[in-house]
Amino acid sequence: MGSAPRATNRRRMMGEAASGNPVLVDVFRGSRVESCHRGAIAISDTAGRLVLALGDVARPVYPRSAVKVLQAIPLVESGAADAFDLSPDELAVACASHSGDQVHLDAVASLLAKAGLDESYLACGAHWPISDVTTHTLLVAGKRPRAIHNNCSGKHAGMLAAAVHLGFDPRGYEKVDHPLQVLIARILSETCGVSLDPTQMGIDGCSLPTFAQPLGALAQGFARLGTGAALPPKRARAGQRLMEACFAAPVLVAGEGRFDTIVLRGLAGTAFTKGGAEGVHCAALPELGLGVALKVDDGAKRGAERALSEVLGALLPKAWVVLANELEGEVHNWHGLLVGRMAAGEALKRALRDLPGAGAHTATG
Amino acid sequence: MGSAPRATNRRRMMGEAASGNPVLVDVFRGSRVESCHRGAIAISDTAGRLVLALGDVARPVYPRSAVKVLQAIPLVESGAADAFDLSPDELAVACASHSGDQVHLDAVASLLAKAGLDESYLACGAHWPISDVTTHTLLVAGKRPRAIHNNCSGKHAGMLAAAVHLGFDPRGYEKVDHPLQVLIARILSETCGVSLDPTQMGIDGCSLPTFAQPLGALAQGFARLGTGAALPPKRARAGQRLMEACFAAPVLVAGEGRFDTIVLRGLAGTAFTKGGAEGVHCAALPELGLGVALKVDDGAKRGAERALSEVLGALLPKAWVVLANELEGEVHNWHGLLVGRMAAGEALKRALRDLPGAGAHTATG
Repeated sequence: MGSAPRATNRRRMMGEAASGNPVLVDVFRGSRVESCHRGAIAISDTAGRLVLALGDVARPVYPRSAVKVLQAIPLVESGAADAFDLSPDELAVACASHSGDQVHLDAVASLLAKAGLDESYLACGAHWPISDVTTHTLLVAGKRPRAIHNNCSGKHAGMLAAAVHLGFDPRGYEKVDHPLQVLIARILSETCGVSLDPTQMGIDGCSLPTFAQPLGALAQGFARLGTGAALPPKRARAGQRLMEACFAAPVLVAGEGRFDTIVLRGLAGTAFTKGGAEGVHCAALPELGLGVALKVDDGAKRGAERALSEVLGALLPKAWVVLANELEGEVHNWHGLLVGRMAAGEALKRALRDLPGAGAHTATG
Repeated sequence: MGSAPRATNRRRMMGEAASGNPVLVDVFRGSRVESCHRGAIAISDTAGRLVLALGDVARPVYPRSAVKVLQAIPLVESGAADAFDLSPDELAVACASHSGDQVHLDAVASLLAKAGLDESYLACGAHWPISDVTTHTLLVAGKRPRAIHNNCSGKHAGMLAAAVHLGFDPRGYEKVDHPLQVLIARILSETCGVSLDPTQMGIDGCSLPTFAQPLGALAQGFARLGTGAALPPKRARAGQRLMEACFAAPVLVAGEGRFDTIVLRGLAGTAFTKGGAEGVHCAALPELGLGVALKVDDGAKRGAERALSEVLGALLPKAWVVLANELEGEVHNWHGLLVGRMAAGEALKRALRDLPGAGAHTATG
């Protein structure tokens, strides 16, 4: 009896952010675990009932780019998407962490042009494209990346279009006190059923505010996004239209070979997934009426994608086919030799084995 | 009394590789910890007395590239370095995880040529150079990377030269049962004072064997490398000559802007450091008679380099100047805004505060 509280106190004194979160993913080399990724996973229904709470799902985490689809809701809900006659590609890229390939740049440029703006309005900063091909093309041409190559440029373009349509000054749209960001924060809060604490705000890689919130709330928000349950009808339709655009144009949301594109293409209508920086990943599973939110403590994308693959595999039989490579998890070295593999941690395996069968969940919206 | 054993059993059942390792490094965004890196650190003297044992330092870990200097010992100890009249640059690149810049390629090519070999003997496989500059140069020229661009090509070239000088067939030098690898395994075992279990062997990214061993043993090995204590005189001199080559040519060991180059240049003679894949980092501190070995559980380089910076800062006053940027730990976003910082975890801070003063340690060899 005596040791547990002492351990808890010590952990608190040590300021450990995520003490006790279980291992979600092991990385083997040969027969040994070489590295591992801890974290927490919440699976929620639309009422906030947690079907799964593995690890600390109450601790607020920054959702980063995983909530881009929620941040894009004003673009549709305000009527901007109709007024500017936006295509599915343009709506999809507004929800994207894109690779910066030509197809993405075209959609972002066209979205901006329809709103009467251009690249100079983008406040996201520049980075070399995620896409090696486009990076190589830029280099060979002696060019540097611009803000439009930033994986977030579509989100920023969508926000700019919404701001213009709503009569807001497009300059300063990225600031936390700009009326568009105030509106987006309200939508996040209402959809996830959680109040957002301004003292728990960080600045994202692309300079937008990101509000920390519990994984449980994020999962609930994605359950509601997927089903429309508990959302105002106009907002439910806006979320639906954005997800449908992403299912119709999966390459626009990420890029060839990337996790979210693979899921959106292979599980269209069944699983909407979106990853963010530092190991956050969210999913809406409309047919099951569920939402998923997870964060890997150390921020590793390989851990987050593998953990989400396991969750999708447990809930959706078809995911075993679509994510076969991810679930196989082979690690090859520079010479092409198979040297290891990634595998679900025992705690994650056990939690998923104990999940109520997928058939028990039905969409409530 | 009842809960602790149960918790331990559960952790074992869950197969957690590194349950209970403390947080070494926190990554803040705004005022909140966004991510964290757990791990273990051993600091040992030459007799294997642990000055610091933070986390599980008894669990064997793959040392990966952190032990390249030990893997290079046969190159000098065998007489090959003298017979082929190797320069400090060539010896340094034999201990390197290099960036693939022209200066590295020149040293590797010249090392191979002196041994009567060429690039075709390298078994390390090809990858795009760590150096953006060289990658860009290759791309603009329409070329692909070759094995010589692999960050391990210097180690492979050094092994080939040793094999030739020792009369071994240079073909197959990378296989675990090749006489050169048998010799290297013996040197690792003797230097670190630990027997290497063939069933605990993995294949490294460059196809060489990597034997799992405890961090405590690795730290002891680096204490002995730094001081020469408890090593055969010829081996002690070989280690000394390799370290001096690295201090003389720090850019050859990694590359401009990289951690090990910064340390080797700024703390020459005082701290020899070498990182490996998956968050392993080792250091020899000859003046203190100590060795350091650490592994970040999740494999993150940012965690390993930050943790080692803290250790060096605690033991060597000058490290606070040399590693000022690393210890400041500012995180900037794509727009150049300061959005967060990395910081030592409380457990690491406390452990380093409790360390016996650096003045208490003196070289024993």
